[in-house]
Amino acid sequence: MSKPLIINFTPTGMIPTKEMTPHVPVQVNEIVEDVHEAWETGISMVHLHARDAQTGTPTYLREIYADIIGGIRKFAPGLVVCVSLSGRNFGEFEQRADPLFLEGDLKPDMGSLTLSSLNFNRTASVNAPQMIQDLARTMLERGILPELEAFDIGMINYAKYLERKGLLKPPHYFNLLLGNIACAQANLMQAGLMINELPANSHWSLAGIGEAQLHMNSVAIAMEGGVRVGLEDNIWFDKGRTKLATNGQLLRRIHALAEANERTLMSAVNLRKLLDLQAGNGKYGRA
Amino acid sequence: MSKPLIINFTPTGMIPTKEMTPHVPVQVNEIVEDVHEAWETGISMVHLHARDAQTGTPTYLREIYADIIGGIRKFAPGLVVCVSLSGRNFGEFEQRADPLFLEGDLKPDMGSLTLSSLNFNRTASVNAPQMIQDLARTMLERGILPELEAFDIGMINYAKYLERKGLLKPPHYFNLLLGNIACAQANLMQAGLMINELPANSHWSLAGIGEAQLHMNSVAIAMEGGVRVGLEDNIWFDKGRTKLATNGQLLRRIHALAEANERTLMSAVNLRKLLDLQAGNGKYGRA
Repeated sequence: MSKPLIINFTPTGMIPTKEMTPHVPVQVNEIVEDVHEAWETGISMVHLHARDAQTGTPTYLREIYADIIGGIRKFAPGLVVCVSLSGRNFGEFEQRADPLFLEGDLKPDMGSLTLSSLNFNRTASVNAPQMIQDLARTMLERGILPELEAFDIGMINYAKYLERKGLLKPPHYFNLLLGNIACAQANLMQAGLMINELPANSHWSLAGIGEAQLHMNSVAIAMEGGVRVGLEDNIWFDKGRTKLATNGQLLRRIHALAEANERTLMSAVNLRKLLDLQAGNGKYGRA
Repeated sequence: MSKPLIINFTPTGMIPTKEMTPHVPVQVNEIVEDVHEAWETGISMVHLHARDAQTGTPTYLREIYADIIGGIRKFAPGLVVCVSLSGRNFGEFEQRADPLFLEGDLKPDMGSLTLSSLNFNRTASVNAPQMIQDLARTMLERGILPELEAFDIGMINYAKYLERKGLLKPPHYFNLLLGNIACAQANLMQAGLMINELPANSHWSLAGIGEAQLHMNSVAIAMEGGVRVGLEDNIWFDKGRTKLATNGQLLRRIHALAEANERTLMSAVNLRKLLDLQAGNGKYGRA
């Protein structure tokens, strides 16, 4: 029987604005509503980015994450919740780590950990070795599982190094993000090599930027992997870029592909078991 | 007949100090002397890093590069000379580009261009997209050929993007640098994939960090590639790290490997033809 399909839902990200697409959720209530619809469609986990209520720009503030997580857990207390610790807009450890210090029912299960510095299309994203290690150590101490973000092959080697240093404990969860201009490209050779390089006891999802999202998601569904999907990586529904997508449309297409490939959904309950996370419903993260 | 072997000599780098090894040349006269010995042993090009005379730490100042280049061209007016434009210690364009503005007999033929941001073992090396494009444009305008530095697969994609934008003109020269902890690793799969990804009309050398230098140099000699070799990447002669190397010893081993593999040296004259550089002897860089 096929491995159940991990669907990692990424509704917002840091880049899409209301000007780019009216469908991107940026206010707390909008994000919570999109996650609610996604939960009813079927997802395993959610990767959250918070936005400032006034400006709509990214924020690291734990209070905003608290409102989003609190809203989600009213209807989906078991959904695996990951917060972004991105350094693209915020350079200080205290900023990036801020949402890791939420407690109780607001504590995230996971936090994103990008495994090196890299370039996006227009900007450098700086994640110096000390920052990566400090974030990993803080998550280890607080029982929060890193969502390992690998944009190129060498970043997987760095995850292995962190495991040897005792800063990462398996089982691991990786997002393999393909198609950024100065990173691994969204083709079978590079995706395949990255999958082969993963350390033992790793679970993975493929993500693609722009139209590569559908290519990489579909490959992952075909090949027993998971998917990261949502407007964070891609705002268009079609390859011709004529129709703006909604998060719901993107998710329903994933379910159609899954059904045709005989893939069932990895439930949040089973994802918790797979990743050694506590049961949800008041106990979050690793014990 | 085999393609002649490009030997790119990297005597100094930014990291080795006299405390780490007495053999690293850091003063102008020491660097010039090591290049003189290397020229007599046989090299095609030299990749220079300047150091401050008092502190021995890296400097971007064109005056120091002028002294080194002037010293080298007294005995080897045709040797292809590349200057470092590294951003590891200097963040401003005006600093990084400074040696590109040398003129006449002091003008470098090439300048190093790292194709993305990345992490080294302890530090981030930030090369934001705008900086890369500004350095590439300046070199294009001044007739200086970029030495393209690729540490992972995605960086090669970025070179292709720069060529599409008109900021890089073939023929290209790439250093493929393997074995940094958060970058491509020094194995055949990853080296092979990088070589396969190169744009048309590219010439390449393999470099390896630490003991990977010998592995990657030897593979390149076996497989019709070039080598980047010198104390910049590796201060030890043996894999057991019992004997500190001299630049001369490293180069003589390359020549022994080349001879056994039926590889002849790519002369500086022929490298100039291959890379569309002017003839040396007063005319440097591209026309």
